[in-house]
Amino acid sequence: MNKTQITAEPGIPLITITREFDAPRELVFRAYTDPELLVQWLGPRDLALTVERYDARDGGKWRYVNTDAQGGSYGFHGVFHGDPSPDAIVQTFEYEGTPGHVKLDTITLEQRDGKTLVRTVSAFPSVQDRDAMIASGMERGVRDSAERLEELLAKLQAG
Amino acid sequence: MNKTQITAEPGIPLITITREFDAPRELVFRAYTDPELLVQWLGPRDLALTVERYDARDGGKWRYVNTDAQGGSYGFHGVFHGDPSPDAIVQTFEYEGTPGHVKLDTITLEQRDGKTLVRTVSAFPSVQDRDAMIASGMERGVRDSAERLEELLAKLQAG
Repeated sequence: MNKTQITAEPGIPLITITREFDAPRELVFRAYTDPELLVQWLGPRDLALTVERYDARDGGKWRYVNTDAQGGSYGFHGVFHGDPSPDAIVQTFEYEGTPGHVKLDTITLEQRDGKTLVRTVSAFPSVQDRDAMIASGMERGVRDSAERLEELLAKLQAG
Repeated sequence: MNKTQITAEPGIPLITITREFDAPRELVFRAYTDPELLVQWLGPRDLALTVERYDARDGGKWRYVNTDAQGGSYGFHGVFHGDPSPDAIVQTFEYEGTPGHVKLDTITLEQRDGKTLVRTVSAFPSVQDRDAMIASGMERGVRDSAERLEELLAKLQAG
């Protein structure tokens, strides 16, 4: 069960990611919305994450930057639609390397006997945008993020 | 040329709307972002539009309500991603009758010999959401809006 599933059907401008975490929903929600926790799990393991802004409320803006060991940096930003809640976090997402290409992420957290199923649906305005995101190597970031989040949630519950 | 084209391919969670207007791009942009102009053209002819909020800037919120002659009202709201410009207006959109179902609209305005081609791409997180939007009778609203905008742009240019 504890595996990250990434679905991206040919010709359909969506990416769906599901993963179950062995932690209560409120804690998973905190990990997604508290920038101090976010920096501990989001992104590939070999990149550092700096959260410049993370205003998790309706109309709030967020921006973070990934940096690699060579000094390269990759910025991302967006806004929240509605106040994030454990039921749903809805936010726009733009990679600053391809400005003007925006997607919409809907993240839902479902409680299941003390575990939490996280489902992220990314909706893109075109199949080209969706395919470019996949070609960028996002899969490694998604899998690393899920493993790192699992580790963080275990640590938070042990502490 | 001056016809509204609505494209919604089966199984693809997108709606694309294109329409050319006989007006310069800056004026069309104003009609999309100035709430005093917006109320004069947006929506079906038989519904009144009240703009409660229209903060056309990055992270700004918008909300408007359509009311019919019988007193029924239909609220919509969302947020702007990035500062709207004549190049692109990107915003989220939620019909309050189906809460939690959010789409992302990307509106681009292309100048063409004094005319302006407006292209709106709506990206939905599921085909069901896209199909529900079509089943709700949005087509009438889209066609009425385009005709009303054409009339308003002519009036603004004549005056």
